[in-house]
Amino acid sequence: MGPHPAVAAIRLAVRRALHDILTAHTPPDSILPGPNIPNESAPLVLVACSGGADSMALASALAFEAPKLGLRAGGVTVDHGLQPGSDLRADEVVLRLTELGLAPVESIAVAVGREGGPEAAARDARYGALDAAAERHGATAVLLGHTRDDQAETVLLGLARGSGIRSLSGMAAVSGRPGAPDRYRRPFLQLDRQTARKACMVQSLPVWDDPHNADPAYTRSRLRHEGLPALEKALGKGVVEALARTAQLSRDDADALDTWARQAEASVRDTAGLLECAKLYALPPAVRRRILRSAAIEAGAPAGSLFARHIEEVDRLITGWRGQGAINLPGRVVAQRQGGRLVIRQG
Amino acid sequence: MGPHPAVAAIRLAVRRALHDILTAHTPPDSILPGPNIPNESAPLVLVACSGGADSMALASALAFEAPKLGLRAGGVTVDHGLQPGSDLRADEVVLRLTELGLAPVESIAVAVGREGGPEAAARDARYGALDAAAERHGATAVLLGHTRDDQAETVLLGLARGSGIRSLSGMAAVSGRPGAPDRYRRPFLQLDRQTARKACMVQSLPVWDDPHNADPAYTRSRLRHEGLPALEKALGKGVVEALARTAQLSRDDADALDTWARQAEASVRDTAGLLECAKLYALPPAVRRRILRSAAIEAGAPAGSLFARHIEEVDRLITGWRGQGAINLPGRVVAQRQGGRLVIRQG
Repeated sequence: MGPHPAVAAIRLAVRRALHDILTAHTPPDSILPGPNIPNESAPLVLVACSGGADSMALASALAFEAPKLGLRAGGVTVDHGLQPGSDLRADEVVLRLTELGLAPVESIAVAVGREGGPEAAARDARYGALDAAAERHGATAVLLGHTRDDQAETVLLGLARGSGIRSLSGMAAVSGRPGAPDRYRRPFLQLDRQTARKACMVQSLPVWDDPHNADPAYTRSRLRHEGLPALEKALGKGVVEALARTAQLSRDDADALDTWARQAEASVRDTAGLLECAKLYALPPAVRRRILRSAAIEAGAPAGSLFARHIEEVDRLITGWRGQGAINLPGRVVAQRQGGRLVIRQG
Repeated sequence: MGPHPAVAAIRLAVRRALHDILTAHTPPDSILPGPNIPNESAPLVLVACSGGADSMALASALAFEAPKLGLRAGGVTVDHGLQPGSDLRADEVVLRLTELGLAPVESIAVAVGREGGPEAAARDARYGALDAAAERHGATAVLLGHTRDDQAETVLLGLARGSGIRSLSGMAAVSGRPGAPDRYRRPFLQLDRQTARKACMVQSLPVWDDPHNADPAYTRSRLRHEGLPALEKALGKGVVEALARTAQLSRDDADALDTWARQAEASVRDTAGLLECAKLYALPPAVRRRILRSAAIEAGAPAGSLFARHIEEVDRLITGWRGQGAINLPGRVVAQRQGGRLVIRQG
């Protein structure tokens, strides 16, 4: 008799991710899947585990699958120090990961700052710690427990920004922090939260419910407990799946348009490197606005403060030219039209 | 003293649309905005009016603005015959439009079929009647009362399909039925429903609330009264605006990618007109999948039954080739790989 369907599902998801990691890191003919005793020189895969159901399920599947592929499996838990007793909980997670057979296992305490709001600050501190742990242990990859439900919430959060398809593309299955290798993998991005929870239950893994996840002070929590259920009631049960699929399609579309914009950019500059208005005009609006946006960022405008309405206003210097004056952009960047050229620079 | 801000807002929106219509239909130097008595040969603009607040506000603004630009303004109401007494209500709308000074004004009774569900069938019947009325009266344009709130709902309905950014692009400001000119204009796409309602109130225009709009049997009605308010509660008041902006950005992006796919398609066919797998492989996924989709439709697959998962499976013949067999698509269309070519045809 095989494992419970939920356990089979989490293991399959992790097995696929590990296969991917192996093919990315070793020449194809050296892969020999099958029972294997990993030695100390075998590649190490870490799991980032909060102790919640998603990442505990992920840890259990990693502990089961990694040895079969000749990989070492370890775990890291991050103590954000935001709740009383968080250090004790981190110790408990370390214990559980060790019991699953993971090694090395460690808990890292971080200091959460304030920049960008509480959720962004906690995320920055967490990834900083995970990056450092991966470097220290020489890990090939770090697995994250984000599920399809998390992805759906991320798409809705992006939708609320109204800043276009890049913000609808959610989290990537494979990603890295700026300047670091693409070491993060999200094997559960196609798996629903319920399956992860079920897998913990049938494996008798105790899980911890982060009170922040139910705290209506957090946008994501309101979305999870009120927004998404209401949307499902109105639109039907397939909403989460549809949002996750939208993320993937939007990501591919955004990538393609970014590529196009990068290639087109060189062709719209004159010999002095200035943007020629007539050539910009001839491009599709979607491509032209991406070029304008990246030119503004290059000139010093902070990406996070540059909104669609800013770019639209700059765009009107190209498409609706009536002699209007310079456009002020965030970061003291100024865009103006001069003799058929668009000049964007810090003022 | 000027008009109430809500009335000013609806008039400005309509004035802009009429200016657009004029510049699209007459040489620039013949436009002389200003008080004008339209003669019988002046271009005619019709408003489609249900008697609800949005389209009554639109009709009132059209009646006010059209003569100032030398345009004739008329109105059409469609009696769907779906509720008892709908014919009497249509007569009432005709009376109100006439009182606003519109001419010609007419009510058209249509028979609503069943194809595609009740909402789609009613829409098909309605646009059929409006197209016929526009042809009969030689109208230059037909104005529709869709607001920013309707647009937000349309984006969420598209999101629920999970079929990519084209379905997120909502309704166009200017559009036409397949095979007909782009005669439809939506001047209120940036205006909120509340403003239209307010404008009716301060102008003492009686409005009719379609009971269908509050009937939870309709997806759009559930979305309006439950889904969107819950989303606003979770994400903040800017959601409707963000959704409307997403529509515009998605539309531009989808247009650009469609253009790219059309241009790339010729370059990936061999001299016999067959799709070359190696050349398809080199394209960005977003462009390749659009080419595969249009090839499947060209071969006879009905667009409405062709889902993202179908295209993904065909795509794996290119990106994940392991000798797999033919892929069955809707409309008895079969896709298979043969000697480095992708053959898609009706089986």
